[in-house]
Amino acid sequence: MEPARLSLNTATVRQRWTLRQCIEGCARHGIGGIAPWRDMLAACGVEEAARLIVGHGLTVTGLCRGGMFPAATAEGRRQAIDDNRRAIDEAAAIGAQCLVLVVGGLPEGSKDIAGARAQVRDGIAAVLDHARAAKVPLAIEPLHPMYAGDRSCVNTVAQANALCDELGAGVGIALDVYHVWWDPDLPAGIARAGRERLLAFHVCDWLVPTRDLLLDRGMMGDGVIDIAAIRAQVEAAGYDGLVEVEIFSRDHWWQEDPDGVLRTMIDRARTCV
Amino acid sequence: MEPARLSLNTATVRQRWTLRQCIEGCARHGIGGIAPWRDMLAACGVEEAARLIVGHGLTVTGLCRGGMFPAATAEGRRQAIDDNRRAIDEAAAIGAQCLVLVVGGLPEGSKDIAGARAQVRDGIAAVLDHARAAKVPLAIEPLHPMYAGDRSCVNTVAQANALCDELGAGVGIALDVYHVWWDPDLPAGIARAGRERLLAFHVCDWLVPTRDLLLDRGMMGDGVIDIAAIRAQVEAAGYDGLVEVEIFSRDHWWQEDPDGVLRTMIDRARTCV
Repeated sequence: MEPARLSLNTATVRQRWTLRQCIEGCARHGIGGIAPWRDMLAACGVEEAARLIVGHGLTVTGLCRGGMFPAATAEGRRQAIDDNRRAIDEAAAIGAQCLVLVVGGLPEGSKDIAGARAQVRDGIAAVLDHARAAKVPLAIEPLHPMYAGDRSCVNTVAQANALCDELGAGVGIALDVYHVWWDPDLPAGIARAGRERLLAFHVCDWLVPTRDLLLDRGMMGDGVIDIAAIRAQVEAAGYDGLVEVEIFSRDHWWQEDPDGVLRTMIDRARTCV
Repeated sequence: MEPARLSLNTATVRQRWTLRQCIEGCARHGIGGIAPWRDMLAACGVEEAARLIVGHGLTVTGLCRGGMFPAATAEGRRQAIDDNRRAIDEAAAIGAQCLVLVVGGLPEGSKDIAGARAQVRDGIAAVLDHARAAKVPLAIEPLHPMYAGDRSCVNTVAQANALCDELGAGVGIALDVYHVWWDPDLPAGIARAGRERLLAFHVCDWLVPTRDLLLDRGMMGDGVIDIAAIRAQVEAAGYDGLVEVEIFSRDHWWQEDPDGVLRTMIDRARTCV
């Protein structure tokens, strides 16, 4: 895959580069897209970021992230909804192809995962009109089951598809191989999602051993995920967008020079994606 | 739940007690069952362990563990099958209600999880006659998807049920809340498994945050799993066996005096299971 078909999720180099540096770095390496995180976007300024992104001709494959809907109190849930509306506005301002939703886990003190899932559905429903009006598709990202407690109670593509069925137009799926590679129902879930729902495709790799639940993702090719096979399924379902690289790697890639990380990304995209 | 309905998985106190000490500890605290690991069983001697277990009137809720079928070579797979036959014999010798199977992950160098799953099916099939003859049910334990790479490519109750369907009599499921609590299809999977397939029920808790993928399990009540709800589902499906406590906790419970750990287990079983 050529670098023009890649997108850089800014988390991959966030320890060393600002958003401006990420944008300029993508342009320098011929990477076609970018997916900023909101804190880096805020630090740059939304208008300035939009100007830089357009100026360098980058596609914005997503804004990370909305979500985090479940809360122990009605006030907490209301605040989450307000924050998601702001995230939708930011996504629209930078022309993002979607707002990625990391939907949230169990509210503080709760063991009611079914209740949390209902709060997620209700939260997305509450912001959906705003998203439709802003023409920002909401991309539910199923997260690996090891995050069910604290980050996302949506853990499979089947769950995300069911939410899309229930919520209707304006909601789709961000598929990250890291979260779903283990799922025996993945091929069926991707086929069922289809072109319309597949809003983003993220890659990295699952290392064996994995030393940290959050910050030990691998570069494509260094782990056990058959990324090419999953990409083939996604493209067979009609996805023709960019392939976004998102690697949280505290002890390895975050320690490297970002230009080197981008070169490795590009190299691996040719051979392992 | 009274202590007589509990079983001690010896991994819970393995850093400080031998199998003999575990057996005597269970008896001292009125715990009704035990589930030894094979290395501790070997250190004690199978015959001596059997004598001690009978002498103290304990139920053996399972032997940990068989499995680990996938391998990169035919010779590796053959060795795994031989080892599983020995494990079956050991389980029979101590009167274990089942041999728990941690089925194995990807072979060295492989990214083919579907292939690994086929090797698991073939491996169980290869030892099933031996298990039936020995009257040792094989309990497939679905492991959390975070272990799909290196420990178990069977990650949901639905997968375990499908294997049981395919393999027939003599194969069932060991259900551990730690591995399956996140699964939206868990209630359906438990109901489908039913009394005949539910061979063991293991409890501990999922801590938030979890600091280690393997060795940071929580004591019941210290995490986010609604253990009582899952127990109710299991018992509604007909399970009436003991409840086995299996906690790998390098930095907390493995540092404590085992008698104190057993007292805490018993206390928490009354309130949180």
